[in-house]
Amino acid sequence: MSIALLAVIGAGLAAILYGAFTVNQVLSLPSGTDRMKEIAAAIQEGAQAYLNKQYTTIAIAGGVVFLVLLFAFKFDFIPAVGFAIGAVLSGAAGFIGMLVSVRANVRTTQAASESLAKGLSVAFKAGAITGMLVAGLALLGLAAYYAILTVGLGHAPESRAVVNGLVALSLGASLISVFARLGGGIFTKGADVGGDMVGKVEAGIPEDDPRNPATIADNVGDNVGDCAGMAADLFETYVVTVAATMVLGSILFTANAAQFMFYPLAIGGVCILTSIAGTYGVSLGKGSTNIMGALYKGLVITGVLSLVAIGIVTFQMFGFSEQIGTTEGGSPFTGLSLFLCGILGLVVTGLIVWITEYYTGTDYRPVKSVAKASESGHGTNVIQGLAVSMEATALPALVIVVGIVTAYNLAGLFGIATAVTTMLALAGMIVALDAFGPVTDNAGGIAEMSGLEGSVRETTDALDAVGNTTKAVTKGYAIGSAGLGALVLFAAYTKDIEHFVAHPTEFPFFADVNVSFSLSDPYVIAGLLIGGLLPYLFGGIAMQAVGRAAGAIVEEVRRQFKEKPGIMQGTERPDYARAVNMLTGAAIKEMVVPSMLPILSPLVVYGIVSVVADKSAALSAVGAMLIGVIVTGLFVAISMTAGGGAWDNAKKYIEDGNHGGKGSEAHKAAVTGDTVGDPYKDTAGPAVNPMIKITNIVALLLLAALAG
Amino acid sequence: MSIALLAVIGAGLAAILYGAFTVNQVLSLPSGTDRMKEIAAAIQEGAQAYLNKQYTTIAIAGGVVFLVLLFAFKFDFIPAVGFAIGAVLSGAAGFIGMLVSVRANVRTTQAASESLAKGLSVAFKAGAITGMLVAGLALLGLAAYYAILTVGLGHAPESRAVVNGLVALSLGASLISVFARLGGGIFTKGADVGGDMVGKVEAGIPEDDPRNPATIADNVGDNVGDCAGMAADLFETYVVTVAATMVLGSILFTANAAQFMFYPLAIGGVCILTSIAGTYGVSLGKGSTNIMGALYKGLVITGVLSLVAIGIVTFQMFGFSEQIGTTEGGSPFTGLSLFLCGILGLVVTGLIVWITEYYTGTDYRPVKSVAKASESGHGTNVIQGLAVSMEATALPALVIVVGIVTAYNLAGLFGIATAVTTMLALAGMIVALDAFGPVTDNAGGIAEMSGLEGSVRETTDALDAVGNTTKAVTKGYAIGSAGLGALVLFAAYTKDIEHFVAHPTEFPFFADVNVSFSLSDPYVIAGLLIGGLLPYLFGGIAMQAVGRAAGAIVEEVRRQFKEKPGIMQGTERPDYARAVNMLTGAAIKEMVVPSMLPILSPLVVYGIVSVVADKSAALSAVGAMLIGVIVTGLFVAISMTAGGGAWDNAKKYIEDGNHGGKGSEAHKAAVTGDTVGDPYKDTAGPAVNPMIKITNIVALLLLAALAG
Repeated sequence: MSIALLAVIGAGLAAILYGAFTVNQVLSLPSGTDRMKEIAAAIQEGAQAYLNKQYTTIAIAGGVVFLVLLFAFKFDFIPAVGFAIGAVLSGAAGFIGMLVSVRANVRTTQAASESLAKGLSVAFKAGAITGMLVAGLALLGLAAYYAILTVGLGHAPESRAVVNGLVALSLGASLISVFARLGGGIFTKGADVGGDMVGKVEAGIPEDDPRNPATIADNVGDNVGDCAGMAADLFETYVVTVAATMVLGSILFTANAAQFMFYPLAIGGVCILTSIAGTYGVSLGKGSTNIMGALYKGLVITGVLSLVAIGIVTFQMFGFSEQIGTTEGGSPFTGLSLFLCGILGLVVTGLIVWITEYYTGTDYRPVKSVAKASESGHGTNVIQGLAVSMEATALPALVIVVGIVTAYNLAGLFGIATAVTTMLALAGMIVALDAFGPVTDNAGGIAEMSGLEGSVRETTDALDAVGNTTKAVTKGYAIGSAGLGALVLFAAYTKDIEHFVAHPTEFPFFADVNVSFSLSDPYVIAGLLIGGLLPYLFGGIAMQAVGRAAGAIVEEVRRQFKEKPGIMQGTERPDYARAVNMLTGAAIKEMVVPSMLPILSPLVVYGIVSVVADKSAALSAVGAMLIGVIVTGLFVAISMTAGGGAWDNAKKYIEDGNHGGKGSEAHKAAVTGDTVGDPYKDTAGPAVNPMIKITNIVALLLLAALAG
Repeated sequence: MSIALLAVIGAGLAAILYGAFTVNQVLSLPSGTDRMKEIAAAIQEGAQAYLNKQYTTIAIAGGVVFLVLLFAFKFDFIPAVGFAIGAVLSGAAGFIGMLVSVRANVRTTQAASESLAKGLSVAFKAGAITGMLVAGLALLGLAAYYAILTVGLGHAPESRAVVNGLVALSLGASLISVFARLGGGIFTKGADVGGDMVGKVEAGIPEDDPRNPATIADNVGDNVGDCAGMAADLFETYVVTVAATMVLGSILFTANAAQFMFYPLAIGGVCILTSIAGTYGVSLGKGSTNIMGALYKGLVITGVLSLVAIGIVTFQMFGFSEQIGTTEGGSPFTGLSLFLCGILGLVVTGLIVWITEYYTGTDYRPVKSVAKASESGHGTNVIQGLAVSMEATALPALVIVVGIVTAYNLAGLFGIATAVTTMLALAGMIVALDAFGPVTDNAGGIAEMSGLEGSVRETTDALDAVGNTTKAVTKGYAIGSAGLGALVLFAAYTKDIEHFVAHPTEFPFFADVNVSFSLSDPYVIAGLLIGGLLPYLFGGIAMQAVGRAAGAIVEEVRRQFKEKPGIMQGTERPDYARAVNMLTGAAIKEMVVPSMLPILSPLVVYGIVSVVADKSAALSAVGAMLIGVIVTGLFVAISMTAGGGAWDNAKKYIEDGNHGGKGSEAHKAAVTGDTVGDPYKDTAGPAVNPMIKITNIVALLLLAALAG
């Protein structure tokens, strides 16, 4: 198995090499006029300054958690070090991605001034670097730490030491992710909402107009939110899912744990290679302008190659016909069953991508209905958008339900885990499609601000429109996989308890524990309701933070317009840095409290219920809380991201000349809807993802700490 | 027990007598000038026409359900007749309430022109009539049908015949309720949103201005939505809770079922009398203008008297010290335990009232923050309102959690049921406080339209402002109690299955059933997710219906303004009837599809899962679905009603002269927020209540039908 493990580590390294190689390619491209360089430098500076501050704050929080883990595990360094690895690698993926993104933006503008195909090539390469770094570092971290613990330190694969190390590594990734999603989301949407409201609506100047003092902040936000934040989010989902699948493998198949624990790593390894192959498939045919088609070509190549590769890996490891395990329902399953679960994961991915596109694309009923509703005013636009956001949860939930039941019938809990692992194994390619978005968004901004001719902006706008769709699609994918991944974590929680209870001499704390997860137990209902309220409370706090940050920006921009009347005439330069600094302070301050919510809730609920009732009731309540968080979290997150995407594209649809076009009353109403959708889809909604998983991971670590 | 049962029936009749007596009082009052009478007649005509059409449609749907029940229960008439009783009485409560309300409005205007105290007196009396009819008819229906089945037909109280009859009676009430809430809600908010958007925002004329063609429709809407719809909603919650408590009593205490089944009826009976007493406590002290204080005085009198009365009833029936049962956890409980659960129900009511006031009152942070956010624009107003709506779910959920756990520890599942029954027993008084709202709202409209002097409008506005708060508070109460009531229904579902499985010879269908409600069963997770999506889908459809209806009204009003330019000069009369007819058609058409959702879902889920897996899995999935509906339904409903209330009062707060006052940019943004909040708080949010319960009741009837 050691050579195979080395091969997986090699695949991770290959992704990083691909990244390094492509970085060089991108950086060697020309970066345009002096004005363009100047603007790009301002964005780079702002983004770097923000991330430095954000990661400093996270480092302090991380340090505290590190120490808490050390104490909770009685100075066993394995969990604490695992936590540090997860946190550092997640931070690195986001940070490097951002560094590339803020340098690729201006080069994309330059390339777009030559041709659409060149612009697409640069922007996509920049996205692919982030994508491969996310998948590569995630896989590398997991495989290497697993190798160190098993081969290096000689722990048995199924030992608690290895399980705790992997779970703690997930916690590290999740912690960074919730901070990055929230902090980056508050920054980017504070700038976007505030800038739009005072610029577009009040002053009547276009987006990215250099006269708007919030415009650099808006472009910085694209990088720290949509690039670094999103990278941390998918790094986390990847790590958590693969780690949870490994843990589940170790618990369910004690006899041949090593094999089942290696399987998710192997899937991750081959799919990184197929993702790299897929990136070479993205190119615009001669004279073609179908950007979405070019991107989907890459995705389809990756998907098909992954299918073949997963089939080969599964056949090699398990064969297709011998029984390799038994489902919880008592039916035998084979390697073929696992492979079918893998296919199922890809099908679920495809369906969720398709549903998200339906709800957020300009070609379909939902977005058109929001655009139509804008004709009768701001109010009806928002009402229709909210209606679409709620309706948009139904089909993804059904797909997930069918996926769960099918995978479970094929290969039990491990079947579900395998399906999710396969979904996530494509993360490299999916992130590439998404991280491409902020680069083109920035490229358009730079074109506007440096006064390039209109055709350049048109080219970057065409790229940006596709970026909006891929961003919405990625969010649907991230949330769907996060919900499923969290269910795997919950399965690990229940199986862990079963394991501890079954070995009372090893784990004396659990000797008298009798946990019921029955819905007729009032502590289970209580747990469900408390879990259910967390995404609501968390989302509410996040939305308020954006509202406050945006309100502050509105006042700042109004002040600058008033004090420097030359700004609007173009004779005075706005103070861009002030807006950036204000947002940095606001985002860092506001991200801390909501991030504590998922970390502390399982501990508080356990503590209170174990005092009021007993530890069995407390463990039941915490378990039900995990499901409560997943259930409402899934609906809150899907409705927010889909609704936000629909509002955004309804505005775009009107700007394309429908319902009166730009400047009409319908357009003003659509801008209001877009503003509301901004924190929905880019702050609160996506931050619910890591929030769901942190709650689950903290509960798992709580179990491990209680077990001693 | 027969005399006691007669006493309960007597209490129900007393409430109806009180209603008849007060109707005479109100109708004997003067109804003002000819112009006032003319306007009131137009509102009466519109409301009557709408309700006639609504109830005709419901009668058709009800007829179908009646026949389905006949077939499903193999021509046993008991469930079908129970269903008809529930449906007819619920319809009667709403219809009579509306008849009184549309006659009391103009008399309130007339009384308000004399003094605030007189205006309050008339409006409150009108509300009290509806309140007492709701509680009286609900109790009468339950007690009388129970008496007929047990005493008249000689069925044992704990027999399936009685249980099925009571559950079917609940279904009748629920079915009317979901239709009335949806139909009335779509009507009233279509008129309100449409009228405001085109009147206030576009034409710049005040609310209720007679030049607005939608203004009569708006006033009709208050009566069919806030009065008839709300009455049907609370009738339903009352019936369902008391019936579910009776059913639970029959299942849990087979040895002395009659006593435990009579207990909720007894609580209902004495609390009707205390509610009648409380209505006499509502009066404005000489020179006082504290309307809310006057209303709360009545509520407190009812609360304190109820406490004493429930104590006496409990002591008489069970004593305080002997053990009368055992909780599911195995601890004994006494009459005193039940009494403490009753007190708990009142405390939960008080806390939920207080929390709702905090989130929707102009004196506290949430509403002020929405008003402040309006300064920076439409977008930030909506963002802040959504944030408040999400945050507002946390405390009520925690109160409910603490209530559940405490009641369960005191007296098991029956303790929870007793607490909810006590909450609902105050429904007569609570509805009185709420139904007072649409009367004063109408009174203000009539004052405006008939050109009475400003001081009259000021008096009615003062009454109306209080009406807004009581409406919000009642919704919080209705949803909290609905969530708890639904949990009692779920308990009945699980206990029913246990009962059937334990008696396989009597119920052969359940011989090989083995139901797990464990969260580690994938069918349970699937059920939870499907249940969770229902309130989202339902809410989304309801919001879209309002958006469509409002959009149609906007176009109609714009058309009338354009075709009859004399309307704005006051020389031409708008065509009020057209707007009323349009809304009637839209509301009736749009209410049907979403109403089918909760009725069909349990049947479809049961059908599909029993084919895909087996009947055990299907029953587990349906059970989990019930909890899923309750969990997300609770959050969706609370967030919608609280958010809507906050938006409404933020607008009022600005209109009181804050943040620039009426006509400022902040005010325009606040009007947008109010518009968004309208369908939130008056259509989708409250309709989720009956929707949650229908799902549960249909599942219970499904069990009964399967049992044969």
